Amino acid sequence: MRIEIINTGSELLLGTTVNTHGAWMGTELMKHGLRVQRQTTVPDGPAIIEALSEAMSRSDVVIVTGGIGPTSDDISREAAAVVLGVELIEDEAALRSLEAFFAQRNRPMAEDNRKQALNPVGADVLPNPHGTAPGVYAPPRMSGDRLCALFLLPGPPGEMKPMFHAEVLPRLCALADVSGEHHLETLRFTGIGESDFHAQLDAKLLAIPQLEIGYCARPAEVDLRLIGPRASIEQATLLALDAFPEECFSTKGESLEEVVVRKLTAQGKKLALAESCTGGRIASRITDVSGASAVFTHGYVTYANEAKRDMLGVPEELLSTHGAVSEQVAIAMAQGALNHSGADIALSVTGIAGPTGGTEEKPVGTVWLGLATRGTCFAIQKLHTHGREFFKQATSQNALDMIRRELIKESGCPG
Amino acid sequence: MRIEIINTGSELLLGTTVNTHGAWMGTELMKHGLRVQRQTTVPDGPAIIEALSEAMSRSDVVIVTGGIGPTSDDISREAAAVVLGVELIEDEAALRSLEAFFAQRNRPMAEDNRKQALNPVGADVLPNPHGTAPGVYAPPRMSGDRLCALFLLPGPPGEMKPMFHAEVLPRLCALADVSGEHHLETLRFTGIGESDFHAQLDAKLLAIPQLEIGYCARPAEVDLRLIGPRASIEQATLLALDAFPEECFSTKGESLEEVVVRKLTAQGKKLALAESCTGGRIASRITDVSGASAVFTHGYVTYANEAKRDMLGVPEELLSTHGAVSEQVAIAMAQGALNHSGADIALSVTGIAGPTGGTEEKPVGTVWLGLATRGTCFAIQKLHTHGREFFKQATSQNALDMIRRELIKESGCPG
Repeated sequence: MRIEIINTGSELLLGTTVNTHGAWMGTELMKHGLRVQRQTTVPDGPAIIEALSEAMSRSDVVIVTGGIGPTSDDISREAAAVVLGVELIEDEAALRSLEAFFAQRNRPMAEDNRKQALNPVGADVLPNPHGTAPGVYAPPRMSGDRLCALFLLPGPPGEMKPMFHAEVLPRLCALADVSGEHHLETLRFTGIGESDFHAQLDAKLLAIPQLEIGYCARPAEVDLRLIGPRASIEQATLLALDAFPEECFSTKGESLEEVVVRKLTAQGKKLALAESCTGGRIASRITDVSGASAVFTHGYVTYANEAKRDMLGVPEELLSTHGAVSEQVAIAMAQGALNHSGADIALSVTGIAGPTGGTEEKPVGTVWLGLATRGTCFAIQKLHTHGREFFKQATSQNALDMIRRELIKESGCPG
Repeated sequence: MRIEIINTGSELLLGTTVNTHGAWMGTELMKHGLRVQRQTTVPDGPAIIEALSEAMSRSDVVIVTGGIGPTSDDISREAAAVVLGVELIEDEAALRSLEAFFAQRNRPMAEDNRKQALNPVGADVLPNPHGTAPGVYAPPRMSGDRLCALFLLPGPPGEMKPMFHAEVLPRLCALADVSGEHHLETLRFTGIGESDFHAQLDAKLLAIPQLEIGYCARPAEVDLRLIGPRASIEQATLLALDAFPEECFSTKGESLEEVVVRKLTAQGKKLALAESCTGGRIASRITDVSGASAVFTHGYVTYANEAKRDMLGVPEELLSTHGAVSEQVAIAMAQGALNHSGADIALSVTGIAGPTGGTEEKPVGTVWLGLATRGTCFAIQKLHTHGREFFKQATSQNALDMIRRELIKESGCPG
């Protein structure tokens, strides 16, 4: 089944908003073995007509997001009617539902909203419990020389996503008669480069039948994407784990923070964090995971030297002798965090995120990471020179991986 | 000038990677008055040929990212040669530069890399100082019934972005003879809803000649996008500031954290943060801004009750009587942060990010924000019920805005 997505919205092309709908929908579809073949972004207004017409002539399903609101540049309904070659008529039920939406909120319904009850003849109205814009589903009909079905969905994620789950996926699965033969799995690695991966594994993976592989390099991470029958994916997973047993932190697409929270929970351990240059990024990533409150108690964001002294008890002498960005201070921060918090494992980072603050001896991008437990204490050094955002993300990745490796070591369990 | 972008990469359609290239390039182009008319994402492999052929037949400039690496699914060079109707030939200088890249890193050059020196006849090789894949520029030539120029750029952001600045923008500006007549400005607001904006301003803004407006709703933020001649943008800005003088935190597209760091710097004030439910997100946003180290010293991530007690001195009695998510605890956290850090202004948050932990009295999404200075101390309550990520982002937005408003109050200067 050939599926295309069209996202409308000038803000996506102007760059003021990053298009996350495409990725989200691709993920949801792939869970059901369905793949997106093309994604197109067009500005608000009439450009949708040409794009929709092209897409419908070459695809089995086209999903449009945006352009079904009340304002004048919302013309996806009109475009659909033009391309389908039918009229728009006011749908009684949709109008009543719109009126109810406003009545429930004690707000008068503007005349502009009335046009949201218009629907192409022969198409279904898709209810929108989270907003004013009902969706549209036009069942498969001839478009050029092929049958094509069309969905129109709202642009705001809070309205689009529930409608996608409730109205789009069941219809697509019925249309596709999904055989479930192909699956997607993402294996995630840290501590190795894409080229190490290529050199050691690429040829072996390519020899596995019916397997499609792809790589994606992220800050301090390489993802390996496997698409194919379950057996081929399992074969590839075993090869990858055999080559990089410690570096593979998830065979199920989990993030490093999810893995760390899961392992801490399983081991009943508490974590403390002492962050200088990452400024709370590691704590924020940990607390992105639901359930983090059971394992993460104390976070110290000690940007200034006084804060390292006051909050963590780092001796003034260490700071003046070795500088804040040093092995000694990283270790003292981790030990301070461990002792002040009563946690079982403490991690510290101190470095120079840039763009200013570097020296010849300690260039921008230099970072020390320290780890302390009741039994051990050490620090490692890294250098990340691709800008402030990369620095914070890669360093937080290194930090989470140090915690993960410590937890593996203690439990003897890599998974 | 009609510009199209084509991003290649199966990971973008599978959803394992969000396409940020489109937004980044849209922003960079708009800085020079250039607009992207369409963006298309295609998988790795031969789909690029059809998409490139279509784009070149209707546009003046097509920019492709990705597909110029050494692996077998990298076929953007071949696709360009097919669509341009020319041969690929090995470029001597490109080959030498590839060899130098590997020599410098003491690595042998794989035979696969050699194909990266192939270039369509008549096209320029664009040097890539950050990786192995040189870019391609094919100057305008007839494609269908119009002249079209083509750029091929590498996929990795660290290689693509420098090449875009060094090689693409200068050529585009020369081609476009940019008149600079149209500009983009983004006004950013917090503390009002999109509908307030519509009701008070939409009609007035639409009456301004040659002005294109657009809205974008984000967690606890509305952005107003203005495109047009300078005079029209200024007129719209004055109207918006008149209607929402306190809610507009930037007329130059700055983020709220940038505004807060700028104001703290200008006033020579130090900030401390005490975060529970946001788990370091506010500190991380503040430290995303270069120069934050001069104004942000101490951050307390006090996820657990013991941490609120140990690190901030919140009395046990307050926690047991009112609960951690309460006005009293928010204020005690802010005061504790102020006193322990010696900062001039301290902000605290305590709430329930969810999905678990809510009660009837305090549902998931409830949050208290506290602010303390040497002269004042108060807390406000908010409720954000759209999930954990929205909660953290919207709450950090509320927190940064409380700091901003306090700084405005003290300086008497809204800008």
